Amino acid sequence: MPTYSAPIRDTLFVLNDVLGIGRLSNLPGFADASGEVMEAVLEEGGKFCREVLAPLNQVGDREGCTRHDDGRVTTPSGFKDAYRLYADGGWVGLAADPDYGGQGLPFVIATAVGEFQASANMAWSMYPGLAQGAIAALSAHGSNSQKSEYLPRLIAGEWLATMNLTEPHCGTDLGLIRTKAVPQDDGSYRLSGQKIFISGGEHDLTPNIIHLVLARTEGAPAGVKGLSLFLVPKRLPDADGAPGEANGVTCGAIEEKMGIHGNATCVMNYDEAKGWLVGEAHKGLKAMFTMMNEARLGVGLQGLAQSEIAYQNAVTYARERRQGRALSKKNGAAGEPASAADPIIVHPDIRRILMSVRAFNEAARALMLDTSLKSDIATRSPDPAARQAAEDWLALVTPVIKGVFTDRGFENAVAAQQVYGGHGYIAEWGMEQFVRDARIAMIYEGANGIQALDLVGRKLPADNGRAITAFLTEISTFLAENAEDATLATLVPALKEGLDHLQKATMWLAKNGMQDPDNAGAGSTDYMHLFGLVALGYMWAKMAQAAGRALAAGPTGDQSFYENKLLFARYYMERAMPETGTRLRRIATGAETTMALPAEAF
Amino acid sequence: MPTYSAPIRDTLFVLNDVLGIGRLSNLPGFADASGEVMEAVLEEGGKFCREVLAPLNQVGDREGCTRHDDGRVTTPSGFKDAYRLYADGGWVGLAADPDYGGQGLPFVIATAVGEFQASANMAWSMYPGLAQGAIAALSAHGSNSQKSEYLPRLIAGEWLATMNLTEPHCGTDLGLIRTKAVPQDDGSYRLSGQKIFISGGEHDLTPNIIHLVLARTEGAPAGVKGLSLFLVPKRLPDADGAPGEANGVTCGAIEEKMGIHGNATCVMNYDEAKGWLVGEAHKGLKAMFTMMNEARLGVGLQGLAQSEIAYQNAVTYARERRQGRALSKKNGAAGEPASAADPIIVHPDIRRILMSVRAFNEAARALMLDTSLKSDIATRSPDPAARQAAEDWLALVTPVIKGVFTDRGFENAVAAQQVYGGHGYIAEWGMEQFVRDARIAMIYEGANGIQALDLVGRKLPADNGRAITAFLTEISTFLAENAEDATLATLVPALKEGLDHLQKATMWLAKNGMQDPDNAGAGSTDYMHLFGLVALGYMWAKMAQAAGRALAAGPTGDQSFYENKLLFARYYMERAMPETGTRLRRIATGAETTMALPAEAF
Repeated sequence: MPTYSAPIRDTLFVLNDVLGIGRLSNLPGFADASGEVMEAVLEEGGKFCREVLAPLNQVGDREGCTRHDDGRVTTPSGFKDAYRLYADGGWVGLAADPDYGGQGLPFVIATAVGEFQASANMAWSMYPGLAQGAIAALSAHGSNSQKSEYLPRLIAGEWLATMNLTEPHCGTDLGLIRTKAVPQDDGSYRLSGQKIFISGGEHDLTPNIIHLVLARTEGAPAGVKGLSLFLVPKRLPDADGAPGEANGVTCGAIEEKMGIHGNATCVMNYDEAKGWLVGEAHKGLKAMFTMMNEARLGVGLQGLAQSEIAYQNAVTYARERRQGRALSKKNGAAGEPASAADPIIVHPDIRRILMSVRAFNEAARALMLDTSLKSDIATRSPDPAARQAAEDWLALVTPVIKGVFTDRGFENAVAAQQVYGGHGYIAEWGMEQFVRDARIAMIYEGANGIQALDLVGRKLPADNGRAITAFLTEISTFLAENAEDATLATLVPALKEGLDHLQKATMWLAKNGMQDPDNAGAGSTDYMHLFGLVALGYMWAKMAQAAGRALAAGPTGDQSFYENKLLFARYYMERAMPETGTRLRRIATGAETTMALPAEAF
Repeated sequence: MPTYSAPIRDTLFVLNDVLGIGRLSNLPGFADASGEVMEAVLEEGGKFCREVLAPLNQVGDREGCTRHDDGRVTTPSGFKDAYRLYADGGWVGLAADPDYGGQGLPFVIATAVGEFQASANMAWSMYPGLAQGAIAALSAHGSNSQKSEYLPRLIAGEWLATMNLTEPHCGTDLGLIRTKAVPQDDGSYRLSGQKIFISGGEHDLTPNIIHLVLARTEGAPAGVKGLSLFLVPKRLPDADGAPGEANGVTCGAIEEKMGIHGNATCVMNYDEAKGWLVGEAHKGLKAMFTMMNEARLGVGLQGLAQSEIAYQNAVTYARERRQGRALSKKNGAAGEPASAADPIIVHPDIRRILMSVRAFNEAARALMLDTSLKSDIATRSPDPAARQAAEDWLALVTPVIKGVFTDRGFENAVAAQQVYGGHGYIAEWGMEQFVRDARIAMIYEGANGIQALDLVGRKLPADNGRAITAFLTEISTFLAENAEDATLATLVPALKEGLDHLQKATMWLAKNGMQDPDNAGAGSTDYMHLFGLVALGYMWAKMAQAAGRALAAGPTGDQSFYENKLLFARYYMERAMPETGTRLRRIATGAETTMALPAEAF
């Protein structure tokens, strides 16, 4: 059975040494998150993941969820108890508003713990994960009475929540949504229609589920401009706010799918279900995007998380499995001549797999935490300029985190599975589950092609390119400021070259995408990955810088921790960064060939 | 439910226009394979795959195989009837020796039909697929009495066969094999031990199963030099050659695995099972390699095959699913303004996915058929020089076909699944099965890392680099001879650059791999893919040349068929070939970083 151990030391290294979280102690909630508190939270969170969630991961996959004839859905053995422990531990409201019962800790800490959860048990972690998005959407767009009625329940983990966008005929193109909302005399609405692919749409973890639903009021404008967001509880709160009468929303079926079997993916039927408008009418998409942006970061985190647990187990296997002999006898790959065969970790091609995966994981974690910290700044900083800069980064980088982390997270799970040879294909070893689970992250919350289009078509040109300009400037400033740093000397050329490629690609798209939008579309996925390569390369440079500082400060007894950071930084520059050139060349071929073929000739 | 249509026209284009199969009519069996015969065989084979095998693919996945308490294994509904039809149709012996009841047709035709089968139903196609390897091994190494006793049964499809290598503690490192063979007075042996991951080890398709088993005789040298190959029938043939007494070999369990559920993956227990030596004692590995090389081509074919069926269904979906609007209105992507949304095939990022997959499929099919034709030349040509050249190509290219086709085949199945959005993750659509099935091909018959090592460590240096030199020379000669071909003018620069990168990488490995074998190991996978990129680019140049010739011959009513070949050749050069630079750079970084980390620091 796979095991999991939360990467707490690496997380603290990023938070303290690389991002210098201490400098933000003036922000609300940050003073409460002293080094000791932060460490204790991560330790506790890691322990819960290792001891409670990880052992349920294969159980969840094997048992899946069950829909009963009466429409009830039961989750796999142990899921409910684990959720009760989790909610009682106050984990749902870790970063939530203290006015509604939250602990108000930095979002970045919730993100760090969120990674551990999504590693240990991705299907389970989706249940509370979606509540986070609902809390964000209601906090930003709900009325005061909605907030006081629902936020305390959600933040305490008493109730869970869902987001309802997709319908059978539309996923990406939300303008086609047909679900109807008819206004009632009491100010509420009656919703009717069908939603599909609703994660956690029905389950037995909590006595109530709050559905946030995109629907169309009669006479609303066509397309996305006619969509409004509604809050539809599974059970209508009674006078005391407790779950009362059943509402007209039921689970019609659960999907049989490739993975995340422990999470119920539901067809939800709305039959004159009572609901309330959240925010303004016809501004539903904007309100839903508050939830979606949070969810997209969360999905990117799942990509990293599956890559991390797959890495950990592949390392264990590579240390234990013995096949063949070391080609040479150097360094860590000396082999064990007394045994019949060496552990496969001596083989360079096995090391290549493991190092590539880890070089991604550590940089991805740094980018994730950096971006989450920006989210804290965007919502908590008193300085409008700092908020604006953080928001720009967040908007720009969110589709990259979602698209690149999930593409690479899946690839890495596949690569780690490969280390197991034939055993990787067998269910009991658990590696193939990571692959199947990781696959969904490339699809939901906007398929990765949509992330790439969002990046290229919306985020690059926004505000005359303010966000991308700031991003590129930040990296070139870093390079200029550290031109004399001896630790970085061997790393800088690859990062500089990658940055140059990204700048060229950005200019190419600005010029040719304007002229012909298909040029932007045909290069969008390559651009997203080019961006990701450079952003992660930048994270490695920053981590190397921090490691160099620590080493320069003199022996601390664990110098190898920092030396290994330098080694992986070098590995990333040598092995990952050369791909930037290929990406640029593809982008610069434009759309002509791609668009030439008539649809019937495919 | 997914559908399948055999790519007969593309296959005939490669066989006739690109490879000029007609010029080989002097080889045994080729005269019988006139254009009409070949076309009829492909049509019939395609029809069987479309009508019989494809409809059973999801059934096989859902039902899987069942092991009963008495050790019997039953295959999914319909598998047995389909096999009966297949064997009765003479398909098993299509290319087999007429002296033993085969039809003696070219191996290349069996390969073409084999692709169709592995597309339509990969799990099913593995049962007869493994018999092909056994036929090859027995033909090459069996005694005359073994041949006359077993080949007619196998070639007629009456009995099926397996290959038994892996044991619980060893897969790649066959030198660790423990299964024992004890000689008996009658010249037979008694085999005892356990083999795992035996595809089709037990089933209900045929009344007998012939196991080819690697085992160790007492006193044999340690390691692979002490392995011998044995033939162990499930039931011992009686005096009439019919399946008689049960032998001491039983299926102890079947594995629960990620995919190919329709094929029984068995734990086989040998308990003093009676068997006979095939070929010389202690030369078992060499004999098994006859079977394995054939099987490796077959597994490469599975990669292509899953990519092809995934492509076909993604195209259908992309034509039918409507989401969003065309970014522009050009060419085939004009959109349908009268509808609420355009088919997603108008979107450049969807086209990028589809075109990338198809650009691989067509070139991979050409390389597969070219290589299979070389196999025909190697076994049937009267000219020793031609046989030698063909054998060199076959040895060199087999690991590339196995490793690259299965890596890319899996990636392509994943990409095609992505076209479906959320529906791609749902079992009923069938796309996720292609992904799960395709995944095993990267692992079995030698994990792809082993293929890369075989290529770099064994095939490159063999005979002082004769095979790789001939391969590189063939492409540069092609480029020189066609320097004036206007059709190729825009394609040549990318191929030339790729060839240059491959030459440089080859020289780098020759120099630095000799000096330090870890340098070869650390670059092996990148080298294999670099080789694949160039080999497929060469195929596109040859296909473009053939298409150019056809177009120059004047209008034939289907000019678009040839024009599209030119378009895809250009797409491949623009979008796939730039990767060669990245691969070369990775290789040239060497092993230093990869080998630096101590095993405990991973």
